[in-house]
Amino acid sequence: MISWKNLDTLAAYDNLVKCDHRVNLPEALSGENGAQRVAKYAVPMAAGLSYHYAAKAVDDDILQMLTRLAEEAQLSDKYQELYNGAVINTGEKRLVLHQLTRGQLGQDVVADGVNKRDFYVGEQKKAAEFACKVHAGEITNESGEPFTTVVQIGIGGSDLGPRAIYLALENWARQQNTLKMQARFISNVDPDDAASVLKTIDVSRSLFVLVSKSGTTLETLTNESFVKNALKEAGLDPSRHMVAVTSETSPLAKSADYLAAFFMDDYIGGRYSSSSCVGGVILSLAFGPEVFARFLNGAAEEDKLAMNPDPLQNPDMLDALIGVYERNILGYPTTAVLPYSQALSRFPAHLQQLDMESNGKSVNRFGEAVHYVTGPVIFGEPGTNGQHSFYQLLHQGTDIVPLQFMGYRQNQLGMDVDIQGSTSQQKLCANVAAQIMAFACGKQDADPNKSFAGGRPSSIIIGDQVNPESVGALLAHFENKVMFQGFLWNLNSFDQEGVQLGKVLAKRVLAHDTDGALRAFSDLLHI
Amino acid sequence: MISWKNLDTLAAYDNLVKCDHRVNLPEALSGENGAQRVAKYAVPMAAGLSYHYAAKAVDDDILQMLTRLAEEAQLSDKYQELYNGAVINTGEKRLVLHQLTRGQLGQDVVADGVNKRDFYVGEQKKAAEFACKVHAGEITNESGEPFTTVVQIGIGGSDLGPRAIYLALENWARQQNTLKMQARFISNVDPDDAASVLKTIDVSRSLFVLVSKSGTTLETLTNESFVKNALKEAGLDPSRHMVAVTSETSPLAKSADYLAAFFMDDYIGGRYSSSSCVGGVILSLAFGPEVFARFLNGAAEEDKLAMNPDPLQNPDMLDALIGVYERNILGYPTTAVLPYSQALSRFPAHLQQLDMESNGKSVNRFGEAVHYVTGPVIFGEPGTNGQHSFYQLLHQGTDIVPLQFMGYRQNQLGMDVDIQGSTSQQKLCANVAAQIMAFACGKQDADPNKSFAGGRPSSIIIGDQVNPESVGALLAHFENKVMFQGFLWNLNSFDQEGVQLGKVLAKRVLAHDTDGALRAFSDLLHI
Repeated sequence: MISWKNLDTLAAYDNLVKCDHRVNLPEALSGENGAQRVAKYAVPMAAGLSYHYAAKAVDDDILQMLTRLAEEAQLSDKYQELYNGAVINTGEKRLVLHQLTRGQLGQDVVADGVNKRDFYVGEQKKAAEFACKVHAGEITNESGEPFTTVVQIGIGGSDLGPRAIYLALENWARQQNTLKMQARFISNVDPDDAASVLKTIDVSRSLFVLVSKSGTTLETLTNESFVKNALKEAGLDPSRHMVAVTSETSPLAKSADYLAAFFMDDYIGGRYSSSSCVGGVILSLAFGPEVFARFLNGAAEEDKLAMNPDPLQNPDMLDALIGVYERNILGYPTTAVLPYSQALSRFPAHLQQLDMESNGKSVNRFGEAVHYVTGPVIFGEPGTNGQHSFYQLLHQGTDIVPLQFMGYRQNQLGMDVDIQGSTSQQKLCANVAAQIMAFACGKQDADPNKSFAGGRPSSIIIGDQVNPESVGALLAHFENKVMFQGFLWNLNSFDQEGVQLGKVLAKRVLAHDTDGALRAFSDLLHI
Repeated sequence: MISWKNLDTLAAYDNLVKCDHRVNLPEALSGENGAQRVAKYAVPMAAGLSYHYAAKAVDDDILQMLTRLAEEAQLSDKYQELYNGAVINTGEKRLVLHQLTRGQLGQDVVADGVNKRDFYVGEQKKAAEFACKVHAGEITNESGEPFTTVVQIGIGGSDLGPRAIYLALENWARQQNTLKMQARFISNVDPDDAASVLKTIDVSRSLFVLVSKSGTTLETLTNESFVKNALKEAGLDPSRHMVAVTSETSPLAKSADYLAAFFMDDYIGGRYSSSSCVGGVILSLAFGPEVFARFLNGAAEEDKLAMNPDPLQNPDMLDALIGVYERNILGYPTTAVLPYSQALSRFPAHLQQLDMESNGKSVNRFGEAVHYVTGPVIFGEPGTNGQHSFYQLLHQGTDIVPLQFMGYRQNQLGMDVDIQGSTSQQKLCANVAAQIMAFACGKQDADPNKSFAGGRPSSIIIGDQVNPESVGALLAHFENKVMFQGFLWNLNSFDQEGVQLGKVLAKRVLAHDTDGALRAFSDLLHI
């Protein structure tokens, strides 16, 4: 029997609060014990990835307490409820089914009279068939020329995840000769965003994917009109250049304005939608459906690992538990995501949404105020770039920022150069290994300005290469981590009521239905 | 007489600490008083920008205390010392002269027997002449073809600032028919970064700008070799395709490997170097020297405003004081930078370095530990994109995050579309005005999940357009703000010792001179 309880009502949490034992990281990682700790504090992930937490401020005692917390918070049972189709998104009274887009973890989930796994797979199949026809030249522009560019029009979850994944795999696909179409993205209502994309593509050879579940997202509909105008001005028929990704009940679903429509539903939130048709259409067009299927396989494999009730065998749950320990016991308010891979340059921006929009909340799933801190601020940039930027504060600032590194043994494009006895790839990897130790262990110096206190915790996810399977696994890892943390904090991680007020006020500004300070600010901006 | 004192030794700071009076933002901004507050709490910046702080948690009392703090901390006098050539970067025993690249604020600064203003202007002139020759086809590739692309090779300050400014002005320049060359950037030691750029440009028509003050930055020299190999493989002579931006004493300065060399010096740190030749060469090549000169003028104008000892007339100083109030009195650990302009998409990444590398420190300028928090974590993305991402946490999360908005009345490309009675530009502006009020005032709702506590402070910088002058002013504003905050915290904002340890350890990894945990992590990464 599942019971949803606040974190601070759990005995295991109370034990953690009362425990004043802290891990001394420089000590824990020193000498041969350090090497053993690195070997021991690791857990396999899917797609050849592995999660390493030797540089986190935990030890066997704390891990045992976290394991008890996982049990008492019923993390595994709650995940099971979720994938078996319970109404986990209680605020909006919805199931939460994004894992179902990539695998069947539990029983069949039937909603609205439909087997939802079949529904998602069916839409993916439609997207795959459509993509194949485009690639084969069976679907072309009015002049019979093949489409060469695909442009996603969407915002938030319809933009950040698909964009991060496209960028992660663009060079990999180029190298594997499976880059079928270049992809671009229009998201911002700033007209310069759409105009800038339109100025740098051949619109006559471009397919536009309009992504809006409700069919009413202001930014997206505005940008659609923007693009339609451009198509018309170029003498083209917009309906020959646009497809829709939307819900079956949206005004876009059966419109003749689109070449095709692909469906999602209310059981997958925007930030969890990369493995639905929201990601599937553009990624299948860009890379081919086989590549998208491989990405889904990586995610599905990770979802399975997340079923293990033992956090020490479950990288997603363990990461979640350590994160809560750092947030609520150690009191760290931010977390940095630092992929040592240029391909993952926008992955931190996706995780920022995934995490902060899911768990940036002050009331529990029953609408009661919680008396503990919840989701942290997430930010990050790729290494080594970050090293020459904000790492100064991470090393020597007055606050401690836990770090999430990622490192890969191989690059994607296979070009490299040997300078001073090492390749660029080796330098990249040497830097991330060095940073882990520098943060954890620090270094004393006679000059305090050159001293490093150390004790700055990090974990690292290591893999062979950024490729479809490993990107899928990485994405699912963080989706599952965020889900488990939502369970621990007793939040509804699947709604986002906090974005509503701004929308309402913006409409009032545009309707000139304002006074006081809002009118004054609007006047300053000449609205 | 200047005296450098810790923040917590100042009587004015003590008054702030003891003052338990807090501004109730929903109240302060309500009704007609709210409109008056918006009118009153504003200060002009350079280039037609203005700084608005009506939605900050300050009132006349607190502003008066902050004014006293500015006096007691001698902010104005310290700035004067700086631009008159004192050794402000005490750790490295260097002057701090970035303002001198764009104007003469005080007396002549002579160092190493050279008038430094003349030196910087001379190098800018060299860069301008070089750019004009490239644009005129007087400097070409070996086949006599004009160069069409300029690629900056640099990292940290040699990358983030110039890249952010290029992106800020690229569409503006396109619209004004002054986009002379497209610019690209190679920064990361990840070989996929350079390979990816090289695969998507015509190297035979590309000029590469190698930027390294010391001439020894590992990432940059590695990427230079990478590019030279590619040029050689294409049958080209690298020395006909490369220029250097470096110090006169570096190994690159007089090398025959470069078409030309442009000089900077040790008195300008990387993150403050955008207005030196580090930004000047690539921006003059991309946009023409006149555009770069306009950018410098905007920055110079802002630098002059920063001389005003009255913070209420000095937007840079006021912003700094309010930031310290939020960080040290109200206890907020992070700040979000939210430009409502797609052109400024990478400006937050530049500010992240500028701020976090300057003031992310735990010892004062005498090397003594400070007992107060210093630089916050800085992160951000453009609006409205952020609204559909991490704003959920900003609105309803358990921590308060102060916000720095930017809004512009006009877009750059002049294309727009009218939907539902308003243009995209109007929607963009309406959104930022609405967000300010939503954050500050919140909204009560019977459903706590739909309630907004408000009390979340923000400021906004408003301008007509992102153009050369306003980008210069914006850049200088934040440089000066960070400088004033460094004075308040009594830090040396101009060194970055915190980046050294990682470099040292990475070298040891590459030399296989490691054991224990570092060896174990290196093995996992196959180094």
